[in-house]
Amino acid sequence: MKNSYPTNLYVALTHYPVINKNGDVIASAVTNLDLHDMSRVAKTYGVRSFYVVTPLADQQELVEKIVAHWVKGVGSTYNPKRREALELIRIKNSLDEVVDHIRSNSGNFPKTVVTSAKRSPGNISYGRFRKMLNNGNLYLLIFGTAWGLTDDFIAGADYILDPVMGNTDYNHLSVRSATAVILDRLFGTYK
Amino acid sequence: MKNSYPTNLYVALTHYPVINKNGDVIASAVTNLDLHDMSRVAKTYGVRSFYVVTPLADQQELVEKIVAHWVKGVGSTYNPKRREALELIRIKNSLDEVVDHIRSNSGNFPKTVVTSAKRSPGNISYGRFRKMLNNGNLYLLIFGTAWGLTDDFIAGADYILDPVMGNTDYNHLSVRSATAVILDRLFGTYK
Repeated sequence: MKNSYPTNLYVALTHYPVINKNGDVIASAVTNLDLHDMSRVAKTYGVRSFYVVTPLADQQELVEKIVAHWVKGVGSTYNPKRREALELIRIKNSLDEVVDHIRSNSGNFPKTVVTSAKRSPGNISYGRFRKMLNNGNLYLLIFGTAWGLTDDFIAGADYILDPVMGNTDYNHLSVRSATAVILDRLFGTYK
Repeated sequence: MKNSYPTNLYVALTHYPVINKNGDVIASAVTNLDLHDMSRVAKTYGVRSFYVVTPLADQQELVEKIVAHWVKGVGSTYNPKRREALELIRIKNSLDEVVDHIRSNSGNFPKTVVTSAKRSPGNISYGRFRKMLNNGNLYLLIFGTAWGLTDDFIAGADYILDPVMGNTDYNHLSVRSATAVILDRLFGTYK
């Protein structure tokens, strides 16, 4: 199927179900700079939509307010480049709603790919995912907030992507930094 | 010279001299999440020190307070991984002070490499910089805040690194995202 999008990738940032420092399942609060940094990264690398997932009504309202300020309000004329990025944001209650939204807009279900700082036996490499992104299927790349996505959630995804490792054994990047690195590994071209 | 550091790279985040939206030279305010995200990226990729440069006394105090909380205060036991990252932060008045500090600690002057979202004629590629980082010299990679470093400042550096481009013509990443992508391009190893 030919289309005008630069990529076949959607990105979701999940605030539930994630775990806290003690391993309890929680719904985390939305961080303003996640919306800005991740939507600008998504725009840079041609991501189709950036879904912000939270079941909490007050958190959904907060995201709506921030997006409206930059997309329709004073911010849209103050900084049109922010508008272009934040226009990619869609707010949903759950990952199921995200998948349904993609299917109803594109006609196809996306395959789900989760990110995690832990290495799992069946992980896929960046090179393999790059090839998969050219095979015509749609993919939804899922990031967790707080201390990460729950094990059950990760086990339910179609694929788990290799963790981001640098050249040390420290692997505690913010979700903002991890998103930037991962999308560059998938789509960056440079000398 | 043999040493125990994973890299020959230092990183600096500059709040003066930078330009605002209208092109005026300003001293920008420090952003808390720049300190967290960039120090964690620096730790991930084996950077020797992360310099935060501002001539404003109140901004220096703010950075000192944040760093002290995570390195010596309650935060250091709450989240030791943050401590390891924020320990890399050094506060300086100017880039000249940064260069002097590196020379007095290592015995050598670093070569300066500036980052910019604009492409300049003499830019160096990521591949070339990767090779340079293995030639035994020290390098200081400089990032600007607000609308970027001044043209005069950029012209005075030893090298200008290629801008980060994705697979679209949108190049408006946050300095946090750009730092993550650039250090991964320099030091990331993955399949």
